[in-house]
Amino acid sequence: MVRIENIQKPIYLNHSSLKYPLPKEFLEELSKELKNMNQYPSGSPYNELSDALAQYTGVFPQQILPTNGSDEAIEAVTRSFGNQFILIPTPTFSQYELSADRNDFSRKLVPCLNHHGDYQLNYTEKDLKEASLVWICNPNNPTGNSIPREKIEETLIHASGIVAVDECNYEYLGDTMVDLIHQYPNLVVIRSFSKNFGLAGFRLGFAVSSAQNIEKISRFCQCFNVNKMAEIAGIKVLKYLNYYKRVWQAIEKIRNNFIQGLLQLEVKAFPSKANFILVDFITEENTKRVWNDLKKNNVHTFAAWDGEFSGLENHYIRFTVGNKEEMDYVLKLLRIDKENH
Amino acid sequence: MVRIENIQKPIYLNHSSLKYPLPKEFLEELSKELKNMNQYPSGSPYNELSDALAQYTGVFPQQILPTNGSDEAIEAVTRSFGNQFILIPTPTFSQYELSADRNDFSRKLVPCLNHHGDYQLNYTEKDLKEASLVWICNPNNPTGNSIPREKIEETLIHASGIVAVDECNYEYLGDTMVDLIHQYPNLVVIRSFSKNFGLAGFRLGFAVSSAQNIEKISRFCQCFNVNKMAEIAGIKVLKYLNYYKRVWQAIEKIRNNFIQGLLQLEVKAFPSKANFILVDFITEENTKRVWNDLKKNNVHTFAAWDGEFSGLENHYIRFTVGNKEEMDYVLKLLRIDKENH
Repeated sequence: MVRIENIQKPIYLNHSSLKYPLPKEFLEELSKELKNMNQYPSGSPYNELSDALAQYTGVFPQQILPTNGSDEAIEAVTRSFGNQFILIPTPTFSQYELSADRNDFSRKLVPCLNHHGDYQLNYTEKDLKEASLVWICNPNNPTGNSIPREKIEETLIHASGIVAVDECNYEYLGDTMVDLIHQYPNLVVIRSFSKNFGLAGFRLGFAVSSAQNIEKISRFCQCFNVNKMAEIAGIKVLKYLNYYKRVWQAIEKIRNNFIQGLLQLEVKAFPSKANFILVDFITEENTKRVWNDLKKNNVHTFAAWDGEFSGLENHYIRFTVGNKEEMDYVLKLLRIDKENH
Repeated sequence: MVRIENIQKPIYLNHSSLKYPLPKEFLEELSKELKNMNQYPSGSPYNELSDALAQYTGVFPQQILPTNGSDEAIEAVTRSFGNQFILIPTPTFSQYELSADRNDFSRKLVPCLNHHGDYQLNYTEKDLKEASLVWICNPNNPTGNSIPREKIEETLIHASGIVAVDECNYEYLGDTMVDLIHQYPNLVVIRSFSKNFGLAGFRLGFAVSSAQNIEKISRFCQCFNVNKMAEIAGIKVLKYLNYYKRVWQAIEKIRNNFIQGLLQLEVKAFPSKANFILVDFITEENTKRVWNDLKKNNVHTFAAWDGEFSGLENHYIRFTVGNKEEMDYVLKLLRIDKENH
């Protein structure tokens, strides 16, 4: 692949943030709040925000813990429950492993990507009995696949400890475990506003679980962990659900078209229920060439070696779904690559 | 004290946030950035922000760690160095104790408020030899007094572990230990943008220490711990130093006038180098009456029982310095109280 043209603007398909603009009216509302930033946030338990998130997810406010991005929720859940033994399904989002290691907790990475390319939770019943914390990312990052609801329930039943389900891409998947927190006292669900509502810059995530678990997890968060802009944005953004629903539909369409385009190029893409797509470039050499050539053409992606993912082999690249023009441009670059190799 | 008039607006003298408006031009700059909040912050090591903070404090960027408010810096310093034994001088800001307890680290509260009302670091050489982490708050919260530079240097020399100096009110004090980080590898300084620059809502603090210490502390922070608005605000706000210097001078004047007014009422106020004043109402009964009556008149203050401070007896109230009208109103209420009791 060569540099085919001058792209003025770099295309960032690495971080899986939202590539669509925030609603104009929403930005105007936020702008009016800036003058109040000399005041502290309302602070734990962030009543108004927790109320809004409770309403959005269909639980009680005391079952909600707002956090400084979902990363902080992952850290606090790890500190609350991970002290014995943590199970992490790989390849997956690296933060579960990073949090375990930061706390010197023992953890086991369980390979879940089977040879035929599908991702299955390969936890043994013995593992589930021993672990104090079990991670599930649904849809999984970076593979993008969804974990069947029955499989998660099976895990909840067999696990002796906490099962934490990271649903930070929930809005693209449309399926959640949140309704099961009443049934399973060992269930913690983690959500985010970064990827779906486009609030990555503000850092807003939250945990959902029993009031008892939430109280335990919240002890590992500062009183003012969520900044005031994130607090306000989280409350106000939910008014614009109709806008976002259209955006999510548009992304789904672009994503599926991109996957179709890859199939036509005989490039192996994973089915995805998220706003990113994992692509298998078969060999490390091939993958490095493609990744570098994309970069030369100002397209930035995450490769396995970027450290964003645990247990991902070096022949994968993850593409966040950008807009149609961006994804068409990527397909064009990959087509040239195919013709030249 | 009775309710003397209808105050439309509550007066918040509890949290020690800045009561002055943020610069208009600064707010306009920030407003233009809101549309980019769908992107992640630049993330650790926050190069541009660290450069700006390094320039402001006169150190190298790798000696800076931006944090989600100084609270996060306190937690990360505790996790990095507090695992053996922590020394905390009381009364002081409660977060040092809260962080120690959250991590199940052993800690010793050392009473430092002597009978004649002055605050002295009463650490013994034995304590300093045994502790892996020693806290100093300068100026101290809630007493407001400054700790002499020589006393802090003496502590640094005798301490076997880390000495963390919380300078989150530095801009009111005008004296810092930051220049000593090259001389004392066991020194960590913590700063904040909440109280002085009025960015409490954004949550921006930072730690200053040797590059080696900073690397160790940063392992306990998430990659995106500082949100993008805080990141941008921290860089941009330093352009408005002249405005803030005038504000800090105004606050100093109002503070000193308020202390004078208290003395005239024969109410015992501590000398203060911060934007708050600790007042001794002698008995718990007296203090509760005053605090409640202030509240009835819509003046909100921190009393010892609010849990904001470690080791503060129940006959103290801390007043943040508000504007002149607010402080005159408080003096008026206290005068009525004096006349009635």
